[in-house]
Amino acid sequence: MKDVKQYIEANKDRFLEELFSLIRIPSISSESEHKEDMVRCANRWKELLLASGADKAEVMPSEGNPVVYGEKTIDPSKPTVLVYGHYDVMPVAPLDLWKTSPFEPVVKDGHIWARGADDDKGQSFMHAKAFEFMVKTGQLPCNVKFMFEGEEEIGSPSLYGFCEKHKEMLRADIILVSDTSMLGLDTPSICAGLRGLDYWEVEVTGPNSDLHSGIYGGAVANPIIILSKMIASLHDENNHITIPGFYDDVVELSREERDLMAQAPFNLDEYQKALDIKTVHGENGYSTIERTGIRPCLDVCGIWGGYQGEGSKTVLPSKAFAKISTRLVANQDYEKIAKQFQQYFESIAPDCVKVKVTPLHGGAPYASPMDLSAYKAAEKAMTTVLGKRPIPTRSGGSIPIISGFERILGIKSILMGFGLQSDAIHAPNENYPLDNFFKGIETIPYFYEYFTELESK
Amino acid sequence: MKDVKQYIEANKDRFLEELFSLIRIPSISSESEHKEDMVRCANRWKELLLASGADKAEVMPSEGNPVVYGEKTIDPSKPTVLVYGHYDVMPVAPLDLWKTSPFEPVVKDGHIWARGADDDKGQSFMHAKAFEFMVKTGQLPCNVKFMFEGEEEIGSPSLYGFCEKHKEMLRADIILVSDTSMLGLDTPSICAGLRGLDYWEVEVTGPNSDLHSGIYGGAVANPIIILSKMIASLHDENNHITIPGFYDDVVELSREERDLMAQAPFNLDEYQKALDIKTVHGENGYSTIERTGIRPCLDVCGIWGGYQGEGSKTVLPSKAFAKISTRLVANQDYEKIAKQFQQYFESIAPDCVKVKVTPLHGGAPYASPMDLSAYKAAEKAMTTVLGKRPIPTRSGGSIPIISGFERILGIKSILMGFGLQSDAIHAPNENYPLDNFFKGIETIPYFYEYFTELESK
Repeated sequence: MKDVKQYIEANKDRFLEELFSLIRIPSISSESEHKEDMVRCANRWKELLLASGADKAEVMPSEGNPVVYGEKTIDPSKPTVLVYGHYDVMPVAPLDLWKTSPFEPVVKDGHIWARGADDDKGQSFMHAKAFEFMVKTGQLPCNVKFMFEGEEEIGSPSLYGFCEKHKEMLRADIILVSDTSMLGLDTPSICAGLRGLDYWEVEVTGPNSDLHSGIYGGAVANPIIILSKMIASLHDENNHITIPGFYDDVVELSREERDLMAQAPFNLDEYQKALDIKTVHGENGYSTIERTGIRPCLDVCGIWGGYQGEGSKTVLPSKAFAKISTRLVANQDYEKIAKQFQQYFESIAPDCVKVKVTPLHGGAPYASPMDLSAYKAAEKAMTTVLGKRPIPTRSGGSIPIISGFERILGIKSILMGFGLQSDAIHAPNENYPLDNFFKGIETIPYFYEYFTELESK
Repeated sequence: MKDVKQYIEANKDRFLEELFSLIRIPSISSESEHKEDMVRCANRWKELLLASGADKAEVMPSEGNPVVYGEKTIDPSKPTVLVYGHYDVMPVAPLDLWKTSPFEPVVKDGHIWARGADDDKGQSFMHAKAFEFMVKTGQLPCNVKFMFEGEEEIGSPSLYGFCEKHKEMLRADIILVSDTSMLGLDTPSICAGLRGLDYWEVEVTGPNSDLHSGIYGGAVANPIIILSKMIASLHDENNHITIPGFYDDVVELSREERDLMAQAPFNLDEYQKALDIKTVHGENGYSTIERTGIRPCLDVCGIWGGYQGEGSKTVLPSKAFAKISTRLVANQDYEKIAKQFQQYFESIAPDCVKVKVTPLHGGAPYASPMDLSAYKAAEKAMTTVLGKRPIPTRSGGSIPIISGFERILGIKSILMGFGLQSDAIHAPNENYPLDNFFKGIETIPYFYEYFTELESK
């Protein structure tokens, strides 16, 4: 891959301006008022793919937000890489914690600051620019397809159907994804596994309207207290999840595998200091890396009910709500877990309240084998550009559609992410280091070169 | 009291219009954007007192919202009744559950529908119109003072200081208050006791910012789960409050007293049906009336944290909050309980979070003895107008300033309320039956007559 560094250096300002044109569109998939922004963002991506050298690019309908598809075929006998990413982003609340406007990207201290700077506009755009370099310098070694969806942050509800419908169009030898993090440019890593996910909204109803807490307090069940008790009972004293059958399918890693994982650099003091916590907190018997990588967990992502304003209102509320999610690991079936949770949560509700459980989304866990030629190509590309062999890690996060691709299209994915854990994705002040953005663009062409070589053997 | 019925009948439309002019002012004391409305409402009350026949009326400054004061002296040797009420109202959220606009009163199905229709604009205004009747028909038998404050719903923080400062001006033989409920016009009752109150906001902080629940979930304490566990642990399996020392000063009623209380008409099935609950829920060993009247309790009035919007956001939040209140009964010291709660709540927080407890307000419980001449006068007035001797009850609600009056001014209060439990005070669709409003106006003059007679003996 000749002159890739020079090409990036000569074009870096334009690359950022193009990326910023995507970031400025507030494409929040979970908020219905942004429907129009989703279409605007998809159209902008189409323009950028064509400008980057795609033979064709389209904004294609799905059951939900449109899918951007593009391709360039150089020789049908060569391998095909399908690049997957997403143009939708997370909500930005609480807005008052942002130091800059979330949809007006700013470059400061060597980082891009904006919602989507990393997840996934920044990371997916590296692929467009790496592709542009290969096309413009005549070095593209294989065929390329691009697919960017607008519903990843809400569990990709329409992309499964889209894949079923367009199996032929999406035919490829590997799916290449940058939507995960690495340990760092000086400690490169490749994500070899993803946790799965289930996500529910629960509603607990006590009396049929808000009551005066003096007149009724003490005699009528308080739905917030009941919900708190139900949430409290989801973990036992060892921080094991109490849902019956929850751990049945979890694969226990061997001592050897756990020892290998433990070699990844990790400093508990720094971890705790960075989060300003006195101590970590999780399942007894497992390390922090294990708790977030190879063990399932359950979190409450949100809770609300009753009076939340200024001052005091003495009310016994009618309803309380929570958003509850679990992260699942290899072999757990998210549909089975969803049923187990619903049954259990309903079963622990006392007679004095009514409970409703609404599943919001789910996805299977995924594991990427190290003997895949694409894994080897990614490993070699990173070694070439970053000077060190990457460590295989497992991400605690979930990209449910990755296991969907394997099931529907029969194609494995390679998760070559360039984000950092400090990028604050899903939180205020999301950011992406410029170094990671540009090193990502530099690394990707080598993946194409090595992958084509390995597949042609 | 000659021709009171006729006077009311001839003036009822004007009475309502005058009351509505108070209700239309959104005097919500807990929301700072309503500061101007507080002043407007106080000024409107001043105009209405003067129009009703007061010798003088003033809007007087306090440390917080102004106090409306008015008086009419007919003879310094006669007894003096001090009427107390409040012109501030509760917030209206959730607004979407209101069937009519909360500050545009509507008369429908024999009820006034509006925030403040009962609590306390409707109830306190009965006193102005009963007073007007006595003045205009030359039947006022004693001296009268009026004091309406604008901070009752937030715990009367400034009225204590106002009373200290104006002890002489407020000198009276009894304080007459309509800010409680009765069993019904066909089962009249007088409130012989009030519960006290403590109210706190608690904040639980885990990591220093919202985190991605996939990347950190399982290893970092979730403040919502921790807060839920802390809330869950505030009651034991018998629904006793677990705060050490909480019950130490509670007066246990004798079996005889409890049997007397049990004579008040109460239908558990109807109570449960009206609230649409399968079963009541409270402290083991006590009836519903006891649980809300003579026993303390603890409620969570509000809770919030993390993502509360549409759809799903996979976040491990930094913070969770709750508004927690207790209701206290005779002999419990709200300042002692406040300290006990704070110490206990901080003590049960695990190392993995930080906890902050902010006291928001508090007030002592109150009991009104049945051998007081004012109690007897109220009993006789109700018997005269409603045809039945009223039952003494205890309200689960709190009016903290009532015990403050006794402590600062040395004056007992008589709680002659005409509200109903079904008036939805503090909730959406607050209302007040026209019958109760007009029967209240009719009863009050008899109280003045009998009280003056008893005090002159």
